[in-house]
This record gives sequence, C-alpha cells and structure tokens, in this order.
Amino acid sequence: MIEVNDPKLTSWVPVEAGSDFPIQNLPFGVFQKDDHHPRVGVAIGNFVLDLYALQQDDYFGALLIPDEAFRSYTLNALIKTGKFKIRALRFAISMLLRSDNETLKNSANIYGKYLIPMEEVKMLLPIEPGDYTDFYSSIQHATNIGKMFRPDNPLLPNWKHMPIGYHGRCSSIVPTGTEIRRPKGQIIYKDGDAPQFKATEQLDFELEMAFITHEGKMQGLNITTEEADDFIFGMVIFNDWSARDIQRWEYVPLGPFLSKNFASSISPWVVTLDALEPFRIPGEKQEPEVLDYLKFNGDKNIDIHLQVYIEPEFADPTLVSDSNYKYMYWNMAQQLAHQTINGCNVRAADIYASGTISGNEPNSYGSMMELTWRGANPLTMSDGSERKFINDYDTVFIKAWCEKNNVRIGFGEVRNKILPAFKQ
Amino acid sequence: MIEVNDPKLTSWVPVEAGSDFPIQNLPFGVFQKDDHHPRVGVAIGNFVLDLYALQQDDYFGALLIPDEAFRSYTLNALIKTGKFKIRALRFAISMLLRSDNETLKNSANIYGKYLIPMEEVKMLLPIEPGDYTDFYSSIQHATNIGKMFRPDNPLLPNWKHMPIGYHGRCSSIVPTGTEIRRPKGQIIYKDGDAPQFKATEQLDFELEMAFITHEGKMQGLNITTEEADDFIFGMVIFNDWSARDIQRWEYVPLGPFLSKNFASSISPWVVTLDALEPFRIPGEKQEPEVLDYLKFNGDKNIDIHLQVYIEPEFADPTLVSDSNYKYMYWNMAQQLAHQTINGCNVRAADIYASGTISGNEPNSYGSMMELTWRGANPLTMSDGSERKFINDYDTVFIKAWCEKNNVRIGFGEVRNKILPAFKQ
Repeated sequence: MIEVNDPKLTSWVPVEAGSDFPIQNLPFGVFQKDDHHPRVGVAIGNFVLDLYALQQDDYFGALLIPDEAFRSYTLNALIKTGKFKIRALRFAISMLLRSDNETLKNSANIYGKYLIPMEEVKMLLPIEPGDYTDFYSSIQHATNIGKMFRPDNPLLPNWKHMPIGYHGRCSSIVPTGTEIRRPKGQIIYKDGDAPQFKATEQLDFELEMAFITHEGKMQGLNITTEEADDFIFGMVIFNDWSARDIQRWEYVPLGPFLSKNFASSISPWVVTLDALEPFRIPGEKQEPEVLDYLKFNGDKNIDIHLQVYIEPEFADPTLVSDSNYKYMYWNMAQQLAHQTINGCNVRAADIYASGTISGNEPNSYGSMMELTWRGANPLTMSDGSERKFINDYDTVFIKAWCEKNNVRIGFGEVRNKILPAFKQ
Repeated sequence: MIEVNDPKLTSWVPVEAGSDFPIQNLPFGVFQKDDHHPRVGVAIGNFVLDLYALQQDDYFGALLIPDEAFRSYTLNALIKTGKFKIRALRFAISMLLRSDNETLKNSANIYGKYLIPMEEVKMLLPIEPGDYTDFYSSIQHATNIGKMFRPDNPLLPNWKHMPIGYHGRCSSIVPTGTEIRRPKGQIIYKDGDAPQFKATEQLDFELEMAFITHEGKMQGLNITTEEADDFIFGMVIFNDWSARDIQRWEYVPLGPFLSKNFASSISPWVVTLDALEPFRIPGEKQEPEVLDYLKFNGDKNIDIHLQVYIEPEFADPTLVSDSNYKYMYWNMAQQLAHQTINGCNVRAADIYASGTISGNEPNSYGSMMELTWRGANPLTMSDGSERKFINDYDTVFIKAWCEKNNVRIGFGEVRNKILPAFKQ
C-alpha cells in the first residue's frame, strides 16, 4: 500500500510552507458555502475539497458510502461507516490530490467545482456528539490544581490507578468562531459565606485535545487498549471553558456542573488518527504499575505542539501557554479502555477530551488558574494590561500541530471571543 | 376548553379498574409490532393507540405535525414540536377516545387498525436524549449517604443553596425489559489498599423519576422557574443503576463515572406534565431562603407513589421500598432554572433525573445502600434469602402512579434483570 503519510508526497494543489494542511494531513470537516446545504470536505492547503461533489461524480463509488454521509450537517454518518472505510476514503483522496496523478487536476472547473477557497466557506461544528467525557489525565495539571485546593494532599490516591474522568454537556459544545457569553452563577468568597449570584469573575480556558470515536461494541462489552485505535476516528483541539469561582462552590461531591457546561469549543477539522501515527512517542513510565486492563503495547503518546493566545479587543495577541500533548500521563487507548471496562457503550461521534494539558514548566500550564497561580501572578498582555483570568471582549485561541521531517500536520485553531454577561 | 383531566371523563375503550392508563392519562411512547417500523402511540387501558395510523387517516391534519414525528424510533421529533402542539394533540386524542364521541369508535376495524393490544407490541426506548443530568435533590437521600461517607458532615454546605447535579451517560440509557450485565471495575476494601479489578459486589438500584424537556432557548439565555413548566414535556420512572464499591473509589474529585454509566433504565410511557397537574402539592419549606433565581410560585411538588420490588429468579417479588416523589426538596422548576442559569442550553428530549428519592421512614429509602444501611441490615426476600445488594438473576422493578378522585395516572413500570458479569 502506498503510504499516504509519506513525507515525500506532494500535491498539485498549492500548499504554502507552514500550512497546517499538506497532503499528508487530509482532515475532515463540515463546511457551508453561502446558503447551500452543508457538505463534508477535506482541507488541503488553503482550500476545501468538496467530497460531496466528488461523490456525485462517482470518484468514491467503490466505497459504497451513502450520499447523505457527504451532504450533511455533521460528520456523524461518515464516522459511523467505520475506521476501515474512512481509511480507504482518505487513501482515495490522497491519490486524487497527488502531484503524479492528473485525473482530478485535469477535470474541468476544478477550482470552484471541487476546490473552494477556505475564506469562502463557513466551518460548522464537525460532529453532533451523543456523549462527551472529560478526562483529567495530565499529572502536572492534577498536581497543580490539587496543590491549590488540597495543599497537603495534591494528588488523590486513585489518580495513578485510573484515568479519572467525568461526563460533560453535549448541547453547549460550539465550533470555533462562536462568541461565548460570560456565565453567571453562585459564588462564595470564603468558607461559611452565603453564596452570591453574579457573573463569574474567574473565567478560564482549559487547553485540551479530544478524540472522536467510531461506533463501539454492544453495551456490556469492553474495548481493550489493543483495540482502542480501531475505534478512534481522529482528534480536535478542545477548549473546556471554566468558571473557577462557580466550580469551587459547586463541585463537591458530584463534580463540576454549571462551572463547565455553559460552553466548550472545538476546532473544525478532525485530524485522523492515521495522520498522527508518525508522531507517536512513548509516555512517562507509570508508577505504580497499572491494572492489566490499562496496560498497553507500543508508543501511545503523540507529540502535538500546543499554543494558547489571548487577544484583547484592541491589541495584538499574546502567547500565554506553550505546551504539548506528549505530557499526558494517561493515553487515549487507556482512556477508552477505562471508559468501557464496565460495559459502557461508545457510539460514533462521541467526544473524549484529555483534561487540561500542562507541562512541567510554568509557561506550559494549560489554564489561567495555573498560569497566574489562582490570580496571584497576573500575565501581562501586549498592550501592558494584566490578566488574572479572561476579560470581556478578550479572544482566546489555541493552535495545535505536529511537525517532523518537514511535514506539518496541523489542527488549525479554535478561537472564541468572550461577551459580557447578560444583564438581569 | 373541555378539561382532559376531568375525573368524570370515560372512554369507549375498555379500561379496567386500577389500570395505569385511563383517558385522563394518555402518555406517549414508541412501539413496534412484529417487524414493522416503530411508531408513536398512546396508552389507553390495555391498548396502544397507533398515532401514525390516525395521522395517515388525517385525524390530526389541523395540527400540521409531520408524518415522520409519528413514524419514528423515538419521540424526539414529536417533542420538538413543542408544548402547545402536544397539548393540542393530547386534547384531540382525548376527544377521539371519549365515551360521548363515536367518530373513531364507529370506524371500521378499529381494533387492529388503530388500537393494538399491549401484549402484541414491544415498547422501545421512548427518547434519544442529547444530554442527561442526574440531580441529587432528596434531602433524606443526601443526608443518608452523607452520614455513611462523612459522619461528621452529612449535608455539605452547598446542598441547601442549589439543586446539586452532574452530567450522566446517554449511550447506556435502556428501556424496561433490557437485561443488564453486572459491571466490573476497580475496587478497594480499605483506604490505602491497591485497587483490585473485579465484578461489583455492591450492585444497587436508585429509585428516581425523570423529566424530559422540549427545545429550550438559545445558548446564553436561562429558563426561569415561572417558565420551566412550558419547557417540560413529561416524566418517566428512572432507575440509575449504581455500583457502590466502584463509586466509593473513583468519585473524588470529579464525581461518579463508571459506577453509574454502565446502565440507567426508564419506563416506556412518558406521562405528560399536563396529566400530572391535578397531583401538584407544596414541597417542604426551604431554609435558608434560596437565591432569587430559585424562588417560585405555586405548588411545584407532585404526589407520585413509588414502589420498588426485587424478584429473585425463582421466587415471588418482594416490596423493598414504598416511597413518594413528593419528598423532593428541590422541584423540577428549580432544577431546570438552575441547569440553565449559566446559559447552558436545553434541547428537545434531554432527560433530567431527580436523584434517588428517599422519604423519612426507613422503608421509603430509594436504594439498597440506604435500605440495608450499606449492607449492615440485609432485606429478606419472599423465599427467605437475604439481600445486601442486588444478586445475579434478580429482577428489579419500579412502579409509579398518582391517584386522586378515583383517577389513577400511572407510569407503568421499569423492569430489568441482572445478568452475571462476563468472564474474562
């Protein structure tokens, strides 16, 4: 089989140096041009390749994917076709775009018919998830937060035995570009106070990555760490917006609720796990040894560069976090094995976020909570203003990419602006 | 307007005394007969009224509800049409079934064409929820559990200030009749032990009721306690299956996860909030006074009788809990107001469970955890065997009904049998 990830491959579609979307990437997304029905596309350079247009012209006929999987508001139906069909589809797309294959290149009206400039389309939320889990799998993050809330006991006894996670809210997951309203809620300033009702004063981002699954097994059966990759479609950048003051008061004993469920945002292009394979690396050694169902073979971490920027309304963006997905203590295979070990069933287009990703150095922490150490050390923006947390009209954006052998597999970005809380 | 809840109404369809489904009820569900496509129906006596058949014959033409809302695997599309359309639909159905209206009664082949005996159909999961929240709104339950886990501090400081809740798993919500596989997971026997991997030894039910919503407002806006009823479609019985030993080890700090998400089960008929209106009663006075957004007018609790039975494989069922939904400290209007106060958006067919419902008397506790006080006081079954928790091959069923003025508005039941854990 021709290796679609081969660094030597080039496309006849122009791809600028530094682009997130060379022919080795081919991430899937849902785009809308003007008032047309949304369609499924693949990113290549600064273009969107219209898969529905190609399907209509029978380029993928042999794959027996229904038309509705390409003319859709979401990738759900395409994801449901499974890992091996999508692998074949990505291979077919790679073939069509290769420099040494002129089939598509020489067809009439290639630009406009099949290739649409990115600036002419709107990207939609790529999936409609049936369930969303948020893990808590960075040991640096868990330790940092633990130090603030429980100085004597930062890492709880269960943390190194299982990838701790909880269920989050699907309805409020929004795509890049969506403006987010500052949430209101109950806040106390010190223990014993009666709660006040007000807009959060500690609005925070959480730098995360998330994986999206294919249809899993029937309820009652588990997915092993060996099998996990076959059930993972791809990944996106995930910003788990948080209100720290609301969180502190509400989270015991059942976990975060209103402090998180007002919004989470994701990047529009789903990078397939296949495209990320060249960037696999080993993770940190896990001590104590984990239970059998959490053991795994091979390199399961991935070297993904991550950057978070804050852009005040009238100033240039400031890089506030420079981190990497490789820091994860628990990997995706372990997360999926844990999620299903009790027989919990997984469906196509479920989303599983990593939890905040923090590295060892303070500038690699993945939240304002950690970067400013709960507001004690404010960050300075490009215009000299300071931030303990996120202000109204600030835009936060996160970038993610892998890079090796002059190939850059990028995720694009997730970018959201904060609007002030509604008045009563 | 003729009152569809009027106790004096009778139907020309035979309804036995003690039936859950008199003409004052008219709950909605999804049924399947033989290999036919699933359809939406309404329960009347021992029959299912086929709404799709009636729609095809234009009985509901004026309501402009699309055919697909009646020929469907779920009630989602019907629920999306909103409170006022469904109210009109229920009114139309009541008219067709009234003793003094012979329109439908005199049509040809009424039995078989429009009315199907319940024993000839299979009831499906009535909804495909996009999100599921589990509240924790019974003060007796929260206090009981608190006493076991935190004897010094049973009720946490936030509990009386907000309806504490958390997000649960949608994929594993199953209908009555589904057999449930005993889950496996990590268990410790005392603090400081390394966890063992095994099947749960503390499988439990949780007696709950749940409400199902209509489409809410756009993200960022809240639903007030005054508005809440207009966004609530109806209610079902909810059994939030739990594994107590798994829960104890995993739940700090992010809440229950694998101890709950292997299965939850619901009854098949959604009883509309309209049908429950005659059974409204005041709740317990809330002290301290709640924040403004949680205040409400009128009677918001509902008097719903609840019973839980355990049926060993070869023995008669034993009543183990005799409780009532009226014990809830936080009511549905407050739960929905709290869920949305931060701008979290609500969608059609979301499901919101009450949390375990326990009354004051020990025989009204809503879980084995409380009924046996963590196993200390086992219950005796009809065959003399004892239960600390639920055994393999036990069937657990929950019944729920309102009763007043000789009208019984029943929910049917949710019934599930436990199968042993899969061997490795």
